Amino acid sequence: MTTHTTEQSAHGYSANKEAHLKRLRRIEGQARGLQRMIEEDKYCIDVLTQVSAMTSALEAVALSLLDEHLRHCVAHAVAEGGEVAETKIAEASAAIARLVKS
Amino acid sequence: MTTHTTEQSAHGYSANKEAHLKRLRRIEGQARGLQRMIEEDKYCIDVLTQVSAMTSALEAVALSLLDEHLRHCVAHAVAEGGEVAETKIAEASAAIARLVKS
Amino acid sequence: MTTHTTEQSAHGYSANKEAHLKRLRRIEGQARGLQRMIEEDKYCIDVLTQVSAMTSALEAVALSLLDEHLRHCVAHAVAEGGEVAETKIAEASAAIARLVKS
Amino acid sequence: MTTHTTEQSAHGYSANKEAHLKRLRRIEGQARGLQRMIEEDKYCIDVLTQVSAMTSALEAVALSLLDEHLRHCVAHAVAEGGEVAETKIAEASAAIARLVKS
Repeated sequence: MTTHTTEQSAHGYSANKEAHLKRLRRIEGQARGLQRMIEEDKYCIDVLTQVSAMTSALEAVALSLLDEHLRHCVAHAVAEGGEVAETKIAEASAAIARLVKS
Repeated sequence: MTTHTTEQSAHGYSANKEAHLKRLRRIEGQARGLQRMIEEDKYCIDVLTQVSAMTSALEAVALSLLDEHLRHCVAHAVAEGGEVAETKIAEASAAIARLVKS
Repeated sequence: MTTHTTEQSAHGYSANKEAHLKRLRRIEGQARGLQRMIEEDKYCIDVLTQVSAMTSALEAVALSLLDEHLRHCVAHAVAEGGEVAETKIAEASAAIARLVKS
Repeated sequence: MTTHTTEQSAHGYSANKEAHLKRLRRIEGQARGLQRMIEEDKYCIDVLTQVSAMTSALEAVALSLLDEHLRHCVAHAVAEGGEVAETKIAEASAAIARLVKS
């Protein structure tokens, strides 16, 4: 687990919660669509094209969550300064590294 | 659409159909898990960690489909030779490029 | 061009300038090594392995520059607040998106 | 080391050797340009933009080498069949996985 405040209600992405949920529901639909393609023996390359589209959709969710995290959580921590700021930035950098490598 | 034979039953991944479906069901579950995290206002970085895990799982599906595609469809086409082989390899290269960039 | 202050001497990465230069010199060496491999007709897969290693080295430079940028330039801008902070974060998010997609 | 024939002169990329060398010389130039940017304390985001451009250039080299490898080395091995074909395809898949992850 990571450093987060105990109340769970003012995260960076809260304002756009509905938009994120909508995107994730569409991604869930893409995962079901891929299962259908495999069940119906669709052509491999067409399946791969859909996997690439789904990966791009997931990446877009990640970049949007990250942008909001920087705007809110990281900006707040930096305003407070000190060790909290340090920790938040290290944590954001680690998340960015995971995204770039995944 | 892409160049595929009319019968839909002998694709590269057919032998491992169940394994692919199992992986995709797990990925579908990850998409639902992410929605739950957003609904419950989980910490942004924890959500991002799950997105990275899901992206890696999708990539693993893609690499496995591609490997089977090379082993079967591309190998068959190459055995036939001529324009068919040419087309299949160009198609595989384009799919690889999409994966690398997505 | 992007929003930067006119004096060119207090960027995020300044403290680690030598470390970055060292890494980039090694990457330049990798680019020369790859040319040698091609000239000497080395096996394709061995060339590709070196390209992957070089790409990872470049990514490490990018992640390190980005981390320092967040720690310094972005943190400064956030402390100032207002539109400057907004701009810096939007700019950092765009750079992260380019990295994730490249 | 990997499975390659002893003579070093008929690899997949041989026909386009000059084109690959030209691209790699340009990439080497980009590595030097990045060092100059760091030495002259250019703005972090501008440096990152150049790193992304260089990463994309490297990826293009990799995808082109891989395409030629599939067209020549893998196609040859598949024509021969048997264990050689098996090995070449496993090797190509592993190289693709490294590219996707790097």
